Amino acid sequence: MRIDIVTLFPDFFSSPLNSGLLGKALAKQIAGVHLVNPRDFATDKHHRVDDEPYGGGVGMLMKPEPIFAAVESLPVLPRREVILMTPQGQTMNQPLLRELATNYDQLAIICGHYEGVDERVLHLVTREVSLGDFVLTCGEIPALALINGVVRLLPGTVGKEESLKAESFEAGLLDYPQYTRPAEFRGWKVPPVLLSGNHAEIERWRNSQQIERTRDRRPDLYAQWLDDNANGG
Amino acid sequence: MRIDIVTLFPDFFSSPLNSGLLGKALAKQIAGVHLVNPRDFATDKHHRVDDEPYGGGVGMLMKPEPIFAAVESLPVLPRREVILMTPQGQTMNQPLLRELATNYDQLAIICGHYEGVDERVLHLVTREVSLGDFVLTCGEIPALALINGVVRLLPGTVGKEESLKAESFEAGLLDYPQYTRPAEFRGWKVPPVLLSGNHAEIERWRNSQQIERTRDRRPDLYAQWLDDNANGG
Repeated sequence: MRIDIVTLFPDFFSSPLNSGLLGKALAKQIAGVHLVNPRDFATDKHHRVDDEPYGGGVGMLMKPEPIFAAVESLPVLPRREVILMTPQGQTMNQPLLRELATNYDQLAIICGHYEGVDERVLHLVTREVSLGDFVLTCGEIPALALINGVVRLLPGTVGKEESLKAESFEAGLLDYPQYTRPAEFRGWKVPPVLLSGNHAEIERWRNSQQIERTRDRRPDLYAQWLDDNANGG
Repeated sequence: MRIDIVTLFPDFFSSPLNSGLLGKALAKQIAGVHLVNPRDFATDKHHRVDDEPYGGGVGMLMKPEPIFAAVESLPVLPRREVILMTPQGQTMNQPLLRELATNYDQLAIICGHYEGVDERVLHLVTREVSLGDFVLTCGEIPALALINGVVRLLPGTVGKEESLKAESFEAGLLDYPQYTRPAEFRGWKVPPVLLSGNHAEIERWRNSQQIERTRDRRPDLYAQWLDDNANGG
């Protein structure tokens, strides 16, 4: 997969793209990340990328021309999505990440900045994605989250395929509690069932913990899960 | 505000914490960020921080002892929150960021890794926070999002206070469309009302756009907004 990041702050990405499992996946060329800066495409002598909003208001907006020019400078692979990271977009979730990881050869991701981007940039965009119902100073962090979540699902990034399936949200439920050594730590013991060696019982316990925890903590997810299971899931 | 990041990958943070508005805010000492690595607190000779899950399963868990030791090595300010970034936590949103920015002197943020952390770490934690309903390879990106969103709300980070109020989610609605120069770009014109100079009309237009857009794109937020306004908002 080819990933293009359209960003005014390419330096932001240098350490995160070289760190941890994502860094390893990129080193293995499971995906290739390319950075492009709209400032390099501003045609006036000051390389201006922002301007005041029409109709008044505080803060500055990203101008449309440099973003169009930056995106239009990119190669175009067959199955390409041009994504704007914005609080107005569809909320990022596991099915969206899976769709992007499965159905596309190229993701071009535009990171917003300042107070936002000129609305006409949407003519260039095939999808708007929001990280959640909150405001950050920049679209670079949401872009990084999306890239991490997508690359993680590409074959070869995570060692064992089961590791992807047996986790939060893939079954519509939160994860079960997990324990490792020592069996007793400061008086807190690992639940005895996990030491029993009875795999059927362990699976039953984990499943009931997942359901209980989702019901207690996330009634919205729980209701959705009940619905999905009632409809022949 | 003091922010402690408990992370196995402190290098991850070097470029993001020096970039953009967050970098400027930290340079102005609006908040101080400290990195602490649980690996430095592992007592065995291999500095082991992970181990296999009890009861079987793929992947590795973060062990409890190094995390306890890392957090217990930190100074304790009067109003402190110890936060674990985990998909099982409360979903991050603007009211949560505002609460953290307003009510705390210190945020100690634990970044999970591998398949998760030993459940007993929760004895150390005062709050679990989730970035959203998706899975990433690491808690570093969610931690970065939380730090950015909180520091952004601290006095002095964003130039004008109005810039914080007139935006997405603070009023329970999505933002209105914004436009900057040029007035016409590739045949797409800025809506005439924004060029009218009639401030009352501009505000009416923007407000109706916010409501319409929220209703079309986010029926869940829209229902909540209707509710809040019906109850004397």
